[in-house]
Amino acid sequence: MPNTFGTLFTVTTWGESHGPAVGAVVDGCPPRLPLDAAEIQAELDRRRPGQSDIVTPRKEEDRVEILSGLFEGRTTGTPISLLVRNADQRPGAYDEMRDKFRPSHADYTYEAKFGIRDHRGGGRSSARETVGRVAAGAIARKLLALGGGVELRAYLTAVHDISVPADALAAFPSLAEIEANPVRCPHAPTAERMIERIKQVRADGDSVGGVIECRIRGVPPGLGEPVFDRLEADLAKGMLSLPATKGFEIGSGFAGARLKGSEHNDAFEPGADGTVRTRTNRSGGIQGGISNGEEIFFRVAFKPTATIMQAQNTVDRAGAATELTGRGRHDPCVVPRAVPIVEAMAALVLADHWLRHHGQNRSFRF
Amino acid sequence: MPNTFGTLFTVTTWGESHGPAVGAVVDGCPPRLPLDAAEIQAELDRRRPGQSDIVTPRKEEDRVEILSGLFEGRTTGTPISLLVRNADQRPGAYDEMRDKFRPSHADYTYEAKFGIRDHRGGGRSSARETVGRVAAGAIARKLLALGGGVELRAYLTAVHDISVPADALAAFPSLAEIEANPVRCPHAPTAERMIERIKQVRADGDSVGGVIECRIRGVPPGLGEPVFDRLEADLAKGMLSLPATKGFEIGSGFAGARLKGSEHNDAFEPGADGTVRTRTNRSGGIQGGISNGEEIFFRVAFKPTATIMQAQNTVDRAGAATELTGRGRHDPCVVPRAVPIVEAMAALVLADHWLRHHGQNRSFRF
Amino acid sequence: MPNTFGTLFTVTTWGESHGPAVGAVVDGCPPRLPLDAAEIQAELDRRRPGQSDIVTPRKEEDRVEILSGLFEGRTTGTPISLLVRNADQRPGAYDEMRDKFRPSHADYTYEAKFGIRDHRGGGRSSARETVGRVAAGAIARKLLALGGGVELRAYLTAVHDISVPADALAAFPSLAEIEANPVRCPHAPTAERMIERIKQVRADGDSVGGVIECRIRGVPPGLGEPVFDRLEADLAKGMLSLPATKGFEIGSGFAGARLKGSEHNDAFEPGADGTVRTRTNRSGGIQGGISNGEEIFFRVAFKPTATIMQAQNTVDRAGAATELTGRGRHDPCVVPRAVPIVEAMAALVLADHWLRHHGQNRSFRF
Amino acid sequence: MPNTFGTLFTVTTWGESHGPAVGAVVDGCPPRLPLDAAEIQAELDRRRPGQSDIVTPRKEEDRVEILSGLFEGRTTGTPISLLVRNADQRPGAYDEMRDKFRPSHADYTYEAKFGIRDHRGGGRSSARETVGRVAAGAIARKLLALGGGVELRAYLTAVHDISVPADALAAFPSLAEIEANPVRCPHAPTAERMIERIKQVRADGDSVGGVIECRIRGVPPGLGEPVFDRLEADLAKGMLSLPATKGFEIGSGFAGARLKGSEHNDAFEPGADGTVRTRTNRSGGIQGGISNGEEIFFRVAFKPTATIMQAQNTVDRAGAATELTGRGRHDPCVVPRAVPIVEAMAALVLADHWLRHHGQNRSFRF
Repeated sequence: MPNTFGTLFTVTTWGESHGPAVGAVVDGCPPRLPLDAAEIQAELDRRRPGQSDIVTPRKEEDRVEILSGLFEGRTTGTPISLLVRNADQRPGAYDEMRDKFRPSHADYTYEAKFGIRDHRGGGRSSARETVGRVAAGAIARKLLALGGGVELRAYLTAVHDISVPADALAAFPSLAEIEANPVRCPHAPTAERMIERIKQVRADGDSVGGVIECRIRGVPPGLGEPVFDRLEADLAKGMLSLPATKGFEIGSGFAGARLKGSEHNDAFEPGADGTVRTRTNRSGGIQGGISNGEEIFFRVAFKPTATIMQAQNTVDRAGAATELTGRGRHDPCVVPRAVPIVEAMAALVLADHWLRHHGQNRSFRF
Repeated sequence: MPNTFGTLFTVTTWGESHGPAVGAVVDGCPPRLPLDAAEIQAELDRRRPGQSDIVTPRKEEDRVEILSGLFEGRTTGTPISLLVRNADQRPGAYDEMRDKFRPSHADYTYEAKFGIRDHRGGGRSSARETVGRVAAGAIARKLLALGGGVELRAYLTAVHDISVPADALAAFPSLAEIEANPVRCPHAPTAERMIERIKQVRADGDSVGGVIECRIRGVPPGLGEPVFDRLEADLAKGMLSLPATKGFEIGSGFAGARLKGSEHNDAFEPGADGTVRTRTNRSGGIQGGISNGEEIFFRVAFKPTATIMQAQNTVDRAGAATELTGRGRHDPCVVPRAVPIVEAMAALVLADHWLRHHGQNRSFRF
Repeated sequence: MPNTFGTLFTVTTWGESHGPAVGAVVDGCPPRLPLDAAEIQAELDRRRPGQSDIVTPRKEEDRVEILSGLFEGRTTGTPISLLVRNADQRPGAYDEMRDKFRPSHADYTYEAKFGIRDHRGGGRSSARETVGRVAAGAIARKLLALGGGVELRAYLTAVHDISVPADALAAFPSLAEIEANPVRCPHAPTAERMIERIKQVRADGDSVGGVIECRIRGVPPGLGEPVFDRLEADLAKGMLSLPATKGFEIGSGFAGARLKGSEHNDAFEPGADGTVRTRTNRSGGIQGGISNGEEIFFRVAFKPTATIMQAQNTVDRAGAATELTGRGRHDPCVVPRAVPIVEAMAALVLADHWLRHHGQNRSFRF
Repeated sequence: MPNTFGTLFTVTTWGESHGPAVGAVVDGCPPRLPLDAAEIQAELDRRRPGQSDIVTPRKEEDRVEILSGLFEGRTTGTPISLLVRNADQRPGAYDEMRDKFRPSHADYTYEAKFGIRDHRGGGRSSARETVGRVAAGAIARKLLALGGGVELRAYLTAVHDISVPADALAAFPSLAEIEANPVRCPHAPTAERMIERIKQVRADGDSVGGVIECRIRGVPPGLGEPVFDRLEADLAKGMLSLPATKGFEIGSGFAGARLKGSEHNDAFEPGADGTVRTRTNRSGGIQGGISNGEEIFFRVAFKPTATIMQAQNTVDRAGAATELTGRGRHDPCVVPRAVPIVEAMAALVLADHWLRHHGQNRSFRF
């Protein structure tokens, strides 16, 4: 089931960029969880384009409708169907894409795989598909918050070659700090430089990539299902299943490969109330595929937006060489809008592992 | 099924480091594939410890026995059961681990999750579990080779802070080049420095990490199942499910996040025989989650071996502070021995996606 | 994923009887299959209540909307989202059910399992859930018809103690013969008696059960995946997952247990064009879990409708004894309306096994 | 994964009749369950041939070896690998089967599906495959007994046209009553007649079928996962996945289709300690796909053994008409030996649903 993610808490997304609607079905959410459409809407609003002058001016109202699984304000344990109608479509803007493959997009590979392709706005390969993930992720997030006090926070640490200075973000950032600027970087001076850079590349008709860091606190020891469904393995899969991602690292990551064991190991020490803690956290909160109670943190690399306002060489469906110049309304940097998507995807992974470990036993008290 | 990987071509591994045996069951292998135990044995031999003076001197003969699924030298389409008996065990060497948690190992998290733990040699969390993956991977590899001319090659590009120079490995390395030295780095001058470094940290009772690169050629366009089972998402999951891994990047990876779209995009151009090719390959052979026919390549970060011959702070099962000094026979750098494991895991991902795309239609002619 | 059926051709249904809508998501349908909403609508119209004087007079227009997965009249290989809005709801009619458990309904068990329950019309346990199955089944059916000339036909063979005479239905019935009467029994004299009986029990405020037979022709040898996913095992699961079913038998069924081997065995004989045929078909078209090319046929037992217009003993949510008399608009015999549902479910099983055997290889030419 | 059954408590079986061994891997068993190889052996001994004069005189010692997942007498939560070496093979006895298809066996369909076939003793289609199911079922059974006081009991109710009289088995039979005779029918007078009949058909070189009833008590309300994974749906699938089965019915079954609603409905009444009970149990302990706390009971129809000692018409692999006479050591009636297999399969279904409902939460205290 290529369009389904999760084992016990599952989400199935459906929909194309310029079809009638996009949506998701969540199956496996425990019963009696208090849930309001406004909570889902709030996350969709964070994902929505048109929120600042550095993102695409496309207007997508993105009103979510809950079609099932809710009764008198609580989940019933049955599938939750979520629907968002598509709007503000300008299909004519995509006529050229019917025959020409946009470089570093999925046009060619979808055509090669399926032999047919809804070319309008990228169809199924459009990032619009993530609307369903964000809506479902809002439910996962609610479950994690009420079920166990788990909090997730993602934000930008790099745009192009501009990075947050090392150790500048030691404290767990608040949502307000992250939403304080349009690039969603809680380090204000860096955020300013990022905004400047994005404006500049937009002026050049170009685009840039960046890096998102996600931190998760409140996860108890025990989540993760070795040997294949290790917690970090499912996080890696979730992140690499997002459009435009090129890399994932957890804890010490690639830098950890440059350390010695004596530098990298996290010594254990007795914690409060009989808990076991680690003195450092190069493991990133996961050891042997299982959470150890420390903060989980990971980073995701996003490539620059493939659509640029410059002429590029490509081929058409007949295989002939041609040229294509990006048009329309595109984010010169998608990374800020990817922040709620990374959080949603992380919440889906965590909620699923929460249930896999604690049991979907319907006895949760919310 | 936390111990099963794959959708159509599946492997289930079982076994503990110091139990009677380890093994795997492969289900979904197409019928009539010629298969010989020697082919599996060859890959196990590459994984085996005790092959050079820079790895653990443990002796594991690791003879594979095929218990089912084979008839007169060909697969029958039924489950293939693979068994490797454990040997050369020194369980007494692990008595201290019964009560003390080794730092940056899985001892504590397994105890926290399961409430019981086979402490001998790490039990299920031991890298010995990968014997099953390597055995199964040899079958996947045979399927890919005979079914479609797919070749996989992994090798070291970094140990500690020693890296292969950029562009030094432009050509697809041969197996002989990789196996020419005990670190499995096809760039001979770098290999020498790596070996030196490993000997030095071993002398210090310390350990180091490293980076493995894997390249896959001959993959036709079309493999990968969006939106969640993208080819790179499953590769990421497979790699992060390996012990000691901390990061994964495909194509341009984290460096790609520092590029502009005009620098990163892979222009299309007409190829031979009506194919579509890309002029560059920052996509790493996958676009929109689907292979595009170019070479697939990715890198995996391994942390330094957690067991070091130095005193470390830790706690015991009662939660009291204590100290632990590593003993026994351990690799100061596991990365060279992880090369066949990375290849096996990549083969498992590719074989599964091969069947998912082409169809487990039993009509393959081998 | 309790609300998902299938392995490669999958359907996920969602929705409650008196929620805003019911629907389904089909994932795994091969690309380029010609599909029209009218084809789905035709099957929903067969399922719809209010079609004759012996079924419930409820009016459900049940207009299906295809929200994704279709482009210019063909499937794209991406998820197909199907939506049917609920209408003609009289939730007030169910106030009594909020606190009282209807005998032989799912009210008590849903309450026991989930601790919360949408009591209106049975909520998720309502047969209204099968709208999604019928809609998805219409797509499965189209795939089977175009992909391989497979035809499915279900009809009533018994209502209460009235049965079609043995051997009266030797020929594969046409759709017209089945739809010729409101009980969907192609043997006209029996149909008349069935109708009479249903009218009589309705007049008594009572209900009756019955038996549906389903026949499938055109299935090539080779469908079915031993040892657990045998074709008849998945058919049995599909049928027993339908509301009100109590039994399943294939081929000779329970009567076969009363035969000797010499009477039961199906002798092989050479068929036309090098095929292998069986002289008799007590196997019901499946041997060792795999289709053998003969007609597949099975029977499903349906219990009498649980809602009757008579006072019954029951208990309320507080556990106290009470009484309940059915009210509202209910079928005295649901079996005729279950005919398209059985066909849909059989089509879903067959389409899934079709893909599992032939391969979801995207190379089908329709 | 056609050779895997279950969602949380899973079993994967492997092995051919005349290969080196058969076995199973159980994944998902909760940790800390006390388990002894002798408990598994006891169930295998019940399944073993050669136990009486009415079954096959084949000698299969069937010693089970536990290769993983156990530590100091308790499960560890990791996969449990079970191995049984094959013995007493007479492969030469099957030479004729290499080219001729045995009527009503799986020879032809395996050949048609896979294009290759281990013909010796039926290979993978042999009932010998159920060794793995029985071994795994013994673990499921232990979990159910210790986890919740669930008891399962299967026995014969019919052989050929000899049936246990209605209501003769009102009480839950003891294991001793069932094992008191070689046909495993707890109604002694009927058992005698059954034995007589089996001896007679054996003398005629013929075979007979029969019916097994299975009863399960101690199941709490709440097990079963609508809408597709209803408890009875998974039981039906499990039973129809067994060799030689032709039908399944739960509770009132096919006879229920002949009743009126007023006769069939199970009135609720207050039970002891605030429980809700039903006055009758035509539902068979399951309503709306979920257990209601009453005894679960179902029946399974087995066809007569396909191998008979008489000449039968068939075709060979070249498609030519030929004749085949059964030889070797075969049960004239497999049904008595199927009793522990039905129990094992029922235990696997129940254990899986037990975990799905209560949660695989590792907090079970045994």
